[in-house]
Amino acid sequence: MNIPTTDKPRIVVIGGGFAGISFIRNLKKVNAQVVLFDRHNYHTFQPLLYQVSTAGLEPDSIAYPLRKIFRKHKDFHFRLAEVEAIDPEKKQLTTSIGPLSFDYLVIATGTRTNFFGNESIKTHSMPMKTVPQALNIRSLMLQNIEKADITDDPEERRSLLNFVIAGAGPTGVELAGALAEFRKSILKNDYPLIETNDMQVHLVEGSSRVLSPMSEHASKKAQKFLEGMGVIVHLNTMVKSYDGNTVVTADGKLFKTATFIWAAGVTGAPVQGIDGNALVARQNRYKVDSFNQIEGFQNIFALGDVALMKTHAFPNGHPQVAQPAIQQGRRLALNIIRELAGKEMKPFKYTDKGTMATIGRNRAVADIKNMRFAGTFAWFLWMVVHLFFLIGFRNRVVTFFNWTYNYINYDKAARLIIRPFKKA
Amino acid sequence: MNIPTTDKPRIVVIGGGFAGISFIRNLKKVNAQVVLFDRHNYHTFQPLLYQVSTAGLEPDSIAYPLRKIFRKHKDFHFRLAEVEAIDPEKKQLTTSIGPLSFDYLVIATGTRTNFFGNESIKTHSMPMKTVPQALNIRSLMLQNIEKADITDDPEERRSLLNFVIAGAGPTGVELAGALAEFRKSILKNDYPLIETNDMQVHLVEGSSRVLSPMSEHASKKAQKFLEGMGVIVHLNTMVKSYDGNTVVTADGKLFKTATFIWAAGVTGAPVQGIDGNALVARQNRYKVDSFNQIEGFQNIFALGDVALMKTHAFPNGHPQVAQPAIQQGRRLALNIIRELAGKEMKPFKYTDKGTMATIGRNRAVADIKNMRFAGTFAWFLWMVVHLFFLIGFRNRVVTFFNWTYNYINYDKAARLIIRPFKKA
Repeated sequence: MNIPTTDKPRIVVIGGGFAGISFIRNLKKVNAQVVLFDRHNYHTFQPLLYQVSTAGLEPDSIAYPLRKIFRKHKDFHFRLAEVEAIDPEKKQLTTSIGPLSFDYLVIATGTRTNFFGNESIKTHSMPMKTVPQALNIRSLMLQNIEKADITDDPEERRSLLNFVIAGAGPTGVELAGALAEFRKSILKNDYPLIETNDMQVHLVEGSSRVLSPMSEHASKKAQKFLEGMGVIVHLNTMVKSYDGNTVVTADGKLFKTATFIWAAGVTGAPVQGIDGNALVARQNRYKVDSFNQIEGFQNIFALGDVALMKTHAFPNGHPQVAQPAIQQGRRLALNIIRELAGKEMKPFKYTDKGTMATIGRNRAVADIKNMRFAGTFAWFLWMVVHLFFLIGFRNRVVTFFNWTYNYINYDKAARLIIRPFKKA
Repeated sequence: MNIPTTDKPRIVVIGGGFAGISFIRNLKKVNAQVVLFDRHNYHTFQPLLYQVSTAGLEPDSIAYPLRKIFRKHKDFHFRLAEVEAIDPEKKQLTTSIGPLSFDYLVIATGTRTNFFGNESIKTHSMPMKTVPQALNIRSLMLQNIEKADITDDPEERRSLLNFVIAGAGPTGVELAGALAEFRKSILKNDYPLIETNDMQVHLVEGSSRVLSPMSEHASKKAQKFLEGMGVIVHLNTMVKSYDGNTVVTADGKLFKTATFIWAAGVTGAPVQGIDGNALVARQNRYKVDSFNQIEGFQNIFALGDVALMKTHAFPNGHPQVAQPAIQQGRRLALNIIRELAGKEMKPFKYTDKGTMATIGRNRAVADIKNMRFAGTFAWFLWMVVHLFFLIGFRNRVVTFFNWTYNYINYDKAARLIIRPFKKA
């Protein structure tokens, strides 16, 4: 695969998400060769994916070319490829573009959508973990609204304008809020033949509250915001199946819908070759110690969502969000630099910076330390934090401008239906 | 298709390009129902498509939702559908979503790529007429460079880094210039293992000069600019075939390339049902009189690229660019308003505002009236004019910012490889 041979240690990183990026950034001055594998040539700012799905932002504002991030690093190599298997004994990887040996391996593969083995849902629902998936949701949503405008059949129209989201975590909540805003601003202005109330947004959640990882206060406020915007929230409701036409819940509710978005669960995305004891089956996460070292291995580490570090504060591992990934990446980079210098590694300590979710215009919730915010201030905070963590000056400016523009104009302008390419 | 019945005359427009948009915009106050059909839900600003292909702009900046443009029009209806046939006797259309009758019909379907019946080129080359096609060129280009970085085979690498463009009209010239800039800025910085000179850009043109519709002065300057940027220009060279690996020219030249872009010709895109005498076979354009009325029809008009209006100054019809389309659209709208008011129509008069093409950073050519510009001033003018004609304040600001950013940073930031959606 054309990686230069070297006398320096080779550090291989799998995955260019928050963890992988943070790790490599902090390795800038290391005397080692660094190789990054990813299936995409860009880093995805996942917290804003839902705005791509709902036409608020163009995909290019929340994605950033991986090569560009590390342009100034020496002996850094990006490879657009899939890592298929790890041979820990031989310290070697099998990839879609050939084998590669490593001295240190860092697995930062994150999570993938968990359909819990439900084939009907896997086949017919829309997941939202990647830019192409978000674009596909955008196209489907817009196409279905166009179709609804055309049909004379009231039942078909209802199904086309019925949006059902499974899972009221941050993704589901933010998506539901954005769809409600789309209805209020775009549907009303640009589809004169459709009554605003013809479009329904249902948010279906298995547990007893929305945003269950957050405080009770945040859950209550978020639900109030959602309902105020017209989202219909169904708590304690499990989805049983979806055949492409009807969502069936465990308690027998039926939702006729042409758009069913699955945001109800993720599972770790481990790589073949390191399993057995090192992998926690239920969550598909690697058991790691406080140095992010995978149990039983000296030179193999896992970071972020795919790592499960049990601590006193987090007996089931850290929450699978950006902050632990970023902080672990940084700690591990500093530790590897220490090790290469013959020093001892330092254990990871998590600094909880709080969690937040936005529901819509002037409506967000935030839990920060012992403080609970809800409303305009939380919304403002949410924007500042997300702009700050977006990678790249250009992305920040374009996103900031789009948000300001959309805010003033009650608009969502990135409304292209882009379907798989057909020739001529 | 759920269009309200009406006592007012129904004006149906096929195509939301420059001509269709300009026509409907100028109809704002007409006492008629207006229905617009397009296969996309957005208007494409075609003059900047090449910047999407080469990662300089995101697609959302050069596309604009058609519904949004006419949001304030009364009794305006957009339909995302294909018009399949026209029955001029019955004044009725057949479309992919059902039949519709019309009182006035305006055909503004523009052009499509002309492969001149060459199946090998049609099958393997990349055309660039639509946003999805431009995105596909972007993905292919970036993928091929990634592959070139991976391969150890020098011949394969050369083929992957060899870019061949057929046709040195504005599209081909601008594309070649942008690729040369990509090489100079991105390849050099982000692909340390690839030598800049390993990438080649070939521009193949059948006639004896580039930009043949422009002045001799512009042609010469443009060629000089291109060559100064390292583009290899092949004049008087016809492409004979491309099998996916090798471009063969009529005079026996061979180019091994994985990326062959076809910008060598367009042909009108007429709709079935109006043909015979009204259609000029060689160009597939409708013969229209000075009112854009199609020969032999009272209430059917053609506008822009698909219309062929012979005048003293343009015995072979107006150039197939934005200006005649925009101006004809406006004239026809005013004429239909006149006719509905019982007044006589006025003949179309073309105001030639000049033509321009940009080759790269500080390099453009412009022919305006009897003046010939080349260099920084023409480049500046080109930017101002294109920003001015872009639809929408948001698109103008984002494009302006991207241009400024790219200019200062020698960057092209919209580098996502987005391939047809795959599930989970």
